[in-house]
Amino acid sequence: MYIGRFVVVGQTPAGTPYLGYRVSSRSFPNRRIAVGDDRAVVLPSADAPPTDNPYVSYNCARILGDTAVVANGSHVDPIIDKVSIGYGLRDAIALSLLAMDYEHDVYNTPRIVAAIDGAGEGYIGIITEDKLLVTAAPVSAGRALLIATYEVTEPTAFELPGSCPDELVNALMDCEYELPVAGLVVMPVDDEYMLTARSVIA
Amino acid sequence: MYIGRFVVVGQTPAGTPYLGYRVSSRSFPNRRIAVGDDRAVVLPSADAPPTDNPYVSYNCARILGDTAVVANGSHVDPIIDKVSIGYGLRDAIALSLLAMDYEHDVYNTPRIVAAIDGAGEGYIGIITEDKLLVTAAPVSAGRALLIATYEVTEPTAFELPGSCPDELVNALMDCEYELPVAGLVVMPVDDEYMLTARSVIA
Amino acid sequence: MYIGRFVVVGQTPAGTPYLGYRVSSRSFPNRRIAVGDDRAVVLPSADAPPTDNPYVSYNCARILGDTAVVANGSHVDPIIDKVSIGYGLRDAIALSLLAMDYEHDVYNTPRIVAAIDGAGEGYIGIITEDKLLVTAAPVSAGRALLIATYEVTEPTAFELPGSCPDELVNALMDCEYELPVAGLVVMPVDDEYMLTARSVIA
Amino acid sequence: MYIGRFVVVGQTPAGTPYLGYRVSSRSFPNRRIAVGDDRAVVLPSADAPPTDNPYVSYNCARILGDTAVVANGSHVDPIIDKVSIGYGLRDAIALSLLAMDYEHDVYNTPRIVAAIDGAGEGYIGIITEDKLLVTAAPVSAGRALLIATYEVTEPTAFELPGSCPDELVNALMDCEYELPVAGLVVMPVDDEYMLTARSVIA
Repeated sequence: MYIGRFVVVGQTPAGTPYLGYRVSSRSFPNRRIAVGDDRAVVLPSADAPPTDNPYVSYNCARILGDTAVVANGSHVDPIIDKVSIGYGLRDAIALSLLAMDYEHDVYNTPRIVAAIDGAGEGYIGIITEDKLLVTAAPVSAGRALLIATYEVTEPTAFELPGSCPDELVNALMDCEYELPVAGLVVMPVDDEYMLTARSVIA
Repeated sequence: MYIGRFVVVGQTPAGTPYLGYRVSSRSFPNRRIAVGDDRAVVLPSADAPPTDNPYVSYNCARILGDTAVVANGSHVDPIIDKVSIGYGLRDAIALSLLAMDYEHDVYNTPRIVAAIDGAGEGYIGIITEDKLLVTAAPVSAGRALLIATYEVTEPTAFELPGSCPDELVNALMDCEYELPVAGLVVMPVDDEYMLTARSVIA
Repeated sequence: MYIGRFVVVGQTPAGTPYLGYRVSSRSFPNRRIAVGDDRAVVLPSADAPPTDNPYVSYNCARILGDTAVVANGSHVDPIIDKVSIGYGLRDAIALSLLAMDYEHDVYNTPRIVAAIDGAGEGYIGIITEDKLLVTAAPVSAGRALLIATYEVTEPTAFELPGSCPDELVNALMDCEYELPVAGLVVMPVDDEYMLTARSVIA
Repeated sequence: MYIGRFVVVGQTPAGTPYLGYRVSSRSFPNRRIAVGDDRAVVLPSADAPPTDNPYVSYNCARILGDTAVVANGSHVDPIIDKVSIGYGLRDAIALSLLAMDYEHDVYNTPRIVAAIDGAGEGYIGIITEDKLLVTAAPVSAGRALLIATYEVTEPTAFELPGSCPDELVNALMDCEYELPVAGLVVMPVDDEYMLTARSVIA
């Protein structure tokens, strides 16, 4: 099944929380995810044709202290900026999704987001043409929830085997959902979030 | 089961859409619903003790042209005001719930809302401490959805027998959920919304 | 000149910050302000005729820790609620004014607000049919700024003589602007905000 | 004087409304503005070094029917999207600025916007660290208002000589404000908005 881009919030079997993001694409397979200390960026891969499209590149993850956010578009930035001035995740996500809305492309692609706050609590959000949902997303050891741009547009249980970032990002790329382009896992390691990416094309 | 105040969006067996609102209360049984042409108001009943509490009275329904909204608090007003300046129901409900938030009482009571737009499409909304949901709520002939301040805080199928406002408002008062205080049904009759209320105490 | 209701943020000659609110009215002179520990409420006075209007009564001031807010309507409540969950005053005021909007009465009366945050910084806000303004409002010793529902709808220098709450609230009632009904001053005294009200009719 | 990027709303001597946007830059002089039918995009110029910065490129103008918007960042997109679903400019601008906020760069650069609605009415907006302003901006024949990211952060009268897009865009590039990089004028010509750009470097 093709479900487009998707985000994941889960816990390893040992109870460590993590976030996942996977780029899947029918239209733009020439993309990769580059990771920095406090963010990850979706970029054109080396073989991509030049484009004037300002939406090919966007931050897809941001870290601020104890808070981590992954998203399928640039709404990750206002979400983390609002957290930086005191908002909780419910409000930061809701305001950003309401304002930036679904993507006005031919599919009316929803904006989606998953996050972990300073208390280790997970959140999931989505905005579609006729729905806005932002909700705490409680998961327990070995469990995960997924929300996607197509088909799976409600928070849904998801089996993601793995107990470290490398295993989880591989599982994200190799799972049942079609057309993987790039994957990212964000997980605390030694008290700091670590960002681990894998792409089909460099 | 006590589920507090609740809102309903449904269709009669003949396919006419309607909204319902029921005041249930452990704390303030001395309330009634007064109906006007384009609104309904929750008010203290004649036997209520005098109070300085500015939240005892509030509009619980507003009509504007083809749009009808019922709610458990004064958020019904900004919702209809935003519709009056061009917002669709998704945005009018989401912005009003996000800003006015759950009630900061001892129960952190959610704000809830049900609405019908000009195209006959239903919407349901709720904001709790850790969730904001606004969603199109498709119902078909003879079906209804309910959302309540307690226990039933996701849109949930609800059996409400009746084919006219009087039957429906009586069913709303007599249904399985405890501590009824007052009920309201909003339904189009001859191209105009009609508001029908029933209270335990006048 | 009649400027309707107005709010004030200022400092005494000794540099103590304060807020002021004055009810002026062509339509509803039978109102008073009742003060509690952490809020003030506009209420019908004893001689007021009974009414079904749910807008006659509203909180006009709320205190939360170091933050104080005065306003000409119930938007004071969501503002303080948002501050309680981490928002700064700029965002708490902007979101509440944007959502609750001007009053849809025959005058399209603006909503106005003045506030002091934990760092002693003043804020002023207004929403009218064609404007939303929320701004830091720096004042110095002996100076004040005023914004009103009519005529004076930009932050404007205001002379308010007085160095303690009683003097200031009297000056608020006796100033040049017409049709005073009730006045309120909010000022820190011994590390706690003190609310001082005066009404024409008890 | 260096005032950074700025937007303009004005009327020609003959009373035709127009919008202007000028990129000025200390940091990124290698930019140009490319125009399409319903939008203009800020892009790296041919001589720009490659970059992973996803903010170098953004739509700076969008047209939808009678509405035109120019802005110094990607907030132009949610503004026009909200107009497309019924919002007026006051609300579309206010919600987008509040959510996307000032740019979290080393200067805390404000987001600014100018717009014309279907009735020919102008709007100006800005969000800074301590202010949000969205206001109708009435101009008359031969007059213009400007707001900038630095120094001139209140709507301010601006002399822009010219009676057609070419003259106005040249005046925008040659005016007193330093470090021009690229300019854009949006003006109705024969019932359609025409976008006219000029850049220092191709």
